[in-house]
Parts: sequence; structure tokens; C-alpha cells
Amino acid sequence: MKEIDQQEAERHQRKMANRKAVQDAEVAEKTIEKGLIIVNTGPGKGKSTAAFGLALRMLGNGRRVGVVQFIKGAWETGERPALELFGDRVEWHTMGEGFTWETQDLKRDVAAAERAWAKAEELMADPTIGLLLLDELNIALRYDYLDLDAVIASLKARREDLHVVITGRNAKPALIEAADTVTEMTLVKHHFKAGVKAQSGIEF
Amino acid sequence: MKEIDQQEAERHQRKMANRKAVQDAEVAEKTIEKGLIIVNTGPGKGKSTAAFGLALRMLGNGRRVGVVQFIKGAWETGERPALELFGDRVEWHTMGEGFTWETQDLKRDVAAAERAWAKAEELMADPTIGLLLLDELNIALRYDYLDLDAVIASLKARREDLHVVITGRNAKPALIEAADTVTEMTLVKHHFKAGVKAQSGIEF
Repeated sequence: MKEIDQQEAERHQRKMANRKAVQDAEVAEKTIEKGLIIVNTGPGKGKSTAAFGLALRMLGNGRRVGVVQFIKGAWETGERPALELFGDRVEWHTMGEGFTWETQDLKRDVAAAERAWAKAEELMADPTIGLLLLDELNIALRYDYLDLDAVIASLKARREDLHVVITGRNAKPALIEAADTVTEMTLVKHHFKAGVKAQSGIEF
Repeated sequence: MKEIDQQEAERHQRKMANRKAVQDAEVAEKTIEKGLIIVNTGPGKGKSTAAFGLALRMLGNGRRVGVVQFIKGAWETGERPALELFGDRVEWHTMGEGFTWETQDLKRDVAAAERAWAKAEELMADPTIGLLLLDELNIALRYDYLDLDAVIASLKARREDLHVVITGRNAKPALIEAADTVTEMTLVKHHFKAGVKAQSGIEF
């Protein structure tokens, strides 16, 4: 057990009491409740996994979750079978046909993105959904598969208690502007650089 | 439906064929399989949620997951009831007593961190666990509740197929050095700044 002298303990107590006063004041200032647009972007790991973690949190709070995958779909990821345990509390729609460099077919990619967006709009209209996860929507926007202004207008017109989480690299500036919360996942270090392959439970 | 002319479609196809060649070569270079140390740090949202998303992915791949919460614990988050659906495939241990500014008691915080670390070591020794989530371990290290060198030595000595994900702000440089993958969640924009309060399914 680490040794702690009395003086150190008292200093810590004073510091933390001050910290708590600041914290309580900050919490008291925050009074707004509303559905959020959350964007997870950047080159680092964790954009989709954080979005699925949020889905898990929402499910734990007893709400329903919608998932639309815009790009992925050609391969199976662990989240899907895991979320099947929640039965009809998860509405999962894999609309993508795989990475753009796998399909190599612009018309097919655009058609898939348009179908995915139609599904997203359908889920936005469903009042039983608490969180809508638009996985890799940023990729569809980046390649102009979808009209950015139309997507943003539709997101803004959603019902006010619906949370939406959007993932993918290179989020468009106008989407960042429209969002409430934006996290850039920054790559400090990645095991791929050290020759480690994609592994079950980590990448898929 | 978006209009696409033939020339544009062909240009896209060539670009993506090149991209695929690069991608395939990169994938072929990666041959190592090993348990990873993954660190999610930084001031942005998504450190713990990404870790729980990874837990979900691991569960979807049929593996067992261990969770040790070093700081949180005084309040309930949605992940816990959600993961209860997976029964004994999740070993969840809430060892923290709440934020350091809530306890205001250094000795109690140190004792809680030491108990949590002992539990982490126990789970590292359990060969049925595929992923160990050490939630907010970085906070315990930042306040020197635990000995950094001892923690890193123990992480390095774990069995080689165990993945460990560590969360919390201000990851220590020596831990970043020891890690395989480090993501800094950078705060681009946060709804708290706009006066939005902590909401169910989003913050807890």
C-alpha cells in the first residue's frame, strides 16, 4: 500500500473541494436538453466503435437504436451479431456494398448511398428511435454520393429529441458546423504500422 | 437519382482500381497477430464509449470481456445494464468510488485504485478473457494512485493473445510508448459548451 502523509492528504482534500465547487457550478449552468448531432471523424481508430458504444449506452437506458451502414456491408463485423441480442430494439440496415475501391463502380456506390439515405430518413421519422447511427455517412458525403445541403437540411429538420451519431473520416466543414459535438480521432500510433494485421474483435 | 456521365464513371473506376492495388499490397504486408495495448486518451468525447464499442465487437466474435472501472462507480452508466444481457461472458468490476473531486479523500482513492489494479491482474491471468477494458486507468496513473512502472511491467508481462484497452485523459508518455495503438480524442466541439446538460444515453 502506498504511503500517504497527513499533509499530502489535506492538500488533496482542499484541492478537490475547490475542484468540486467549480464542477458543480459548471453543471448547474447546463440546463438544455435536446437531441444532438454527434460527429466522430479523423484518421484515428474509434470512430465507429465509439458510435456503437453510444448505441450500447442508449440500449442500456431502455431506448431503441437505428443503424444505417453507408459503406461497410460487404463483410461482417462483431457489432451486428452482438446487437442481435437486443432483438427488435435495434433496427440495423446494411446498405453499403463495401469499400469504394472494392466496388469500383460509381453508379452502384451512388445508388447504394441514396438507398441508405432514404432508410435514414425513414428511421428519423420513427418516434420510437432514440439514437440513429449513420455509420460512414462522411465517406458518402466526401465522394459526393449524396447532396450535402439536402442531408444537412434533413438532419436539422428531424424531431428535436432524436440523437444522431455520424461517423467517417473527412467530415465536411458544413456538417461540422451543423453538429453539436465533434470529436476528431487523432492517430497517435497504430498497430497496422507495426505490421499487425486486422484481427477478430479488434477490427471486425 | 444523381446523374453520372460515362467519363466520370470510368475515371472513378480507374482511380479505385489503383487504390485497391495499394490497399491489397498494404494488407499483404501485415502478418503479425498479437494481443494489443490500445489507449484512448485526449479531451474529446468517445474514449470510454469506443472502448465499450470494442467490447461489443469482441462479444460479437464470441469472446469473453473483462471490465474494471478505476474511477467511475458512484453512478450507473447505460453500458452496464446493456452488457448484462451477455451474462457471464462479461466480468464487470466497478472498483472506483467516483470522481476524485467527489470523494475528496486521497487515501480512499489510492486504496480503491489498488484494489482495482489487483482485480485487473486477476483478469489478465484468466485465459478465457479476450479483451480487458481498464476504464479510466489513466486517471489513477495521472494522480499517482498507482505506480506507473509496475503497471506497465505487468501489462507487458501479460499473455500474448490478450487485448487490453485503457481509457482516460492525460495518458502518461511511458504508457503511450508501451502501447500498440493510441488514439487522441480531440475536442473539436462539445455540446456542454452550448449549455446542454448530461443526458441519458449520451453521457450515462
